[in-house]
Amino acid sequence: MEYREVEPTREFVCGLSHGADWRGELETLATEETLDAAFFVALGAVQDATIFFYDQDRQEYDAVEFDEPFEVASCVGNIATLEGEPFAHTHAVLSRPDGTAIAGHLDAGTVFAGEAWVRAFEEPLVREHDAVTDLDLWSLDAT
Amino acid sequence: MEYREVEPTREFVCGLSHGADWRGELETLATEETLDAAFFVALGAVQDATIFFYDQDRQEYDAVEFDEPFEVASCVGNIATLEGEPFAHTHAVLSRPDGTAIAGHLDAGTVFAGEAWVRAFEEPLVREHDAVTDLDLWSLDAT
Amino acid sequence: MEYREVEPTREFVCGLSHGADWRGELETLATEETLDAAFFVALGAVQDATIFFYDQDRQEYDAVEFDEPFEVASCVGNIATLEGEPFAHTHAVLSRPDGTAIAGHLDAGTVFAGEAWVRAFEEPLVREHDAVTDLDLWSLDAT
Repeated sequence: MEYREVEPTREFVCGLSHGADWRGELETLATEETLDAAFFVALGAVQDATIFFYDQDRQEYDAVEFDEPFEVASCVGNIATLEGEPFAHTHAVLSRPDGTAIAGHLDAGTVFAGEAWVRAFEEPLVREHDAVTDLDLWSLDAT
Repeated sequence: MEYREVEPTREFVCGLSHGADWRGELETLATEETLDAAFFVALGAVQDATIFFYDQDRQEYDAVEFDEPFEVASCVGNIATLEGEPFAHTHAVLSRPDGTAIAGHLDAGTVFAGEAWVRAFEEPLVREHDAVTDLDLWSLDAT
Repeated sequence: MEYREVEPTREFVCGLSHGADWRGELETLATEETLDAAFFVALGAVQDATIFFYDQDRQEYDAVEFDEPFEVASCVGNIATLEGEPFAHTHAVLSRPDGTAIAGHLDAGTVFAGEAWVRAFEEPLVREHDAVTDLDLWSLDAT
């Protein structure tokens, strides 16, 4: 395991805008406040969703699109820098009127209403290509 | 997006009482410690649950009641003031013995066992009626 | 409800090792950094999973094993001391390629990739047998 002790800096509560993209809203905050490392926790509802599943054998993301409203029953993720831009790595659990749930890597979703808590860190998190998984993972031992 | 930088104040770990209401326990903490803004993360188990789904077209909550035990696989939410009282906006993912999950806005659930981490903020969060969604959302630009 | 105000100490971001055990990685951090109280939030993917469901009537854990890859759509938990050793109480929501979710108490899972945020507290959390639930719960009023 690679890990890094981090120094917390600033903290935010966010009301995501109705009609905006869920992940984009978190990246907008990162851009406006120059956050290059943070974790977040969020909840709310979306009008639709694109969920990614990473095929661990083929090492490619497959997308599943859902054109229906969901509660965002859980959303956790983090902000790091990917190719020089802020990227909000976002996982979510979404639910339907009968309570059934779908979940995964949330690539996109139109916000109905959303509430997020964002905690930023002093030390930048940078994503770089990882040869084993073919994912862009944090490079924690580079500092 | 509306957002607010917040100043953390106090932090708590809570063991929710067996037999009490899950959301009520968080609101009891808010009342006893005079918390008017916080985020929380929790896990545990409940003996039953009432899940709300917000119908985005009709703009009304529909309730689904489950009279069975669940693991609380995820619970995230926040404490704000609604009509002068602390309200714990609580979303949860619940699971059955075979692992299948239900999820949504947790209105009520009888605690079997529960563990919560609550992080409070200096600046009060106040919920007010939002005309677009017909929900009570944070008014972040009012300060 | 029992609760305790806690003093935050150190904070970590962790990249869990490919091929290691998900929960074991969090306990390794606790051991290496001598953490005896913390909450964590994590996300990523596993290659398999063993989920526990606590039967509230029989008061025993039943295990369900899944030999398939999952996204870790949500993972929340905490670190406390159990019988003198760090124990990472870990709940998770896992998802399949079609988005369907399973969830519960994550006993074990082989990390494909994982990212965790760990927040430690000054006051140790100690688990002791609870007569009502037959679980090892925090003893918060002992301090």
